[in-house]
Amino acid sequence: MTGSLVVVGTGPGKAELMTPATAAALARATDLVGYGPYLARVPERSGQCRHASDNRVELDRARLALSLAASGRQVVVVSGGDPGVFAMAAAVFEAVEAGEPEWRDLDIKVEPGVTAMLAAAAEVGAPLGGDFCAISLSDNLKAWSTVERRLKAAAEGDFAIALYNPASKARPTQLGKAFDLLRALKTADTPVLFVRAAGTADAQVITTTLGGADPSRADMRTLVIVGASTTRQVGRWVYTPRSEGLGRS
Amino acid sequence: MTGSLVVVGTGPGKAELMTPATAAALARATDLVGYGPYLARVPERSGQCRHASDNRVELDRARLALSLAASGRQVVVVSGGDPGVFAMAAAVFEAVEAGEPEWRDLDIKVEPGVTAMLAAAAEVGAPLGGDFCAISLSDNLKAWSTVERRLKAAAEGDFAIALYNPASKARPTQLGKAFDLLRALKTADTPVLFVRAAGTADAQVITTTLGGADPSRADMRTLVIVGASTTRQVGRWVYTPRSEGLGRS
Repeated sequence: MTGSLVVVGTGPGKAELMTPATAAALARATDLVGYGPYLARVPERSGQCRHASDNRVELDRARLALSLAASGRQVVVVSGGDPGVFAMAAAVFEAVEAGEPEWRDLDIKVEPGVTAMLAAAAEVGAPLGGDFCAISLSDNLKAWSTVERRLKAAAEGDFAIALYNPASKARPTQLGKAFDLLRALKTADTPVLFVRAAGTADAQVITTTLGGADPSRADMRTLVIVGASTTRQVGRWVYTPRSEGLGRS
Repeated sequence: MTGSLVVVGTGPGKAELMTPATAAALARATDLVGYGPYLARVPERSGQCRHASDNRVELDRARLALSLAASGRQVVVVSGGDPGVFAMAAAVFEAVEAGEPEWRDLDIKVEPGVTAMLAAAAEVGAPLGGDFCAISLSDNLKAWSTVERRLKAAAEGDFAIALYNPASKARPTQLGKAFDLLRALKTADTPVLFVRAAGTADAQVITTTLGGADPSRADMRTLVIVGASTTRQVGRWVYTPRSEGLGRS
């Protein structure tokens, strides 16, 4: 039997935010490969093999998945959120490029999902309602100078900015450095949102400003959004208007 | 009975890419408000009122939805994709801000969905696997100079760039102008993807380069992705590696 590999994202957390296409791929799989906490979200099925791994071994995980698919298994690689956004899809194609020539002929498919910034935005209103960008603050795989260059460009372009991986125990200082950089380029009253566990029953929102934002309020489960110059608050909601005519008063 | 308003996105097209949370909100609604083609994707339910409107009347549509919710109806505003990305959620909050004071106390909720760029990226691999930005090329609601400023900033930051609304019958020239601007700032071999009808059974992909990209290949159903300097092709796939170490050869 010919093997296959599908890369999926389980969405931000709640089962109700996983697409039916992803649920169907998971149900058809003979083998699931992924970081333990993401695999734990997938209902157990008898006869299905689970290959749980630690975080930060994405390439090993991708190679294992490709080897299993090449041996004829129906493999699903499980990410959270959307698999193409700071997740496993890029790692799979990196592994294809560096790996066995026959891996290029495998039946590989990516299923899109709801990425964290969309769930975070929905919790607070529509802060990504205009042009926006997504930047990972992790410097495990890129130089911090690249992060700085992108933060500066994002401020220069007046984008709303979604910050993925703002902090972890091993990286406690990046978010503070990012806020410092942005404070030199954007006004102190720019809205800043800390959204923890977006798209789960435990979602928590802190609405603050760039001037007052405390980086210690973010952890691994937090998505931080820094507004554009037009981002504004109405009642308990924060949104970025589609039109430039509505400047912040 | 107390009214409510939920803003949803049906995803990129296929029913299998609509989240169960959105399907449940649609099933509970007494009234659906939206642009005709998006409403047409929602299964008919007896007793449910449909308020279909033309495109480009987002604020009127938002006001109608808020009035219905204020009168006690269970209203769902229907967008395509994710409602917070170039869609109805921002229009709803604009209408709240400019509208009746009691609208601020309404029970309003936004349900996240799969936005077009994620479905487009999944069709071709993982071109948004690193930092990226999303820019709408429509100048109906913002000045073209703002679009230019953001394209320049996106190139300066070496983001992968997702271009929403690249072309329509009324706006045939914007994408060509955007490519011209980017050609002055990025190398001619930068990968460019035209993904039409992503996330539907009719999806079509054109993989080309910034030097060779023909803007006339885009229409209203096309999402265009311009790569970062590291974006690369492997077999039939295009992806942006997570690491900077893998530069394009």
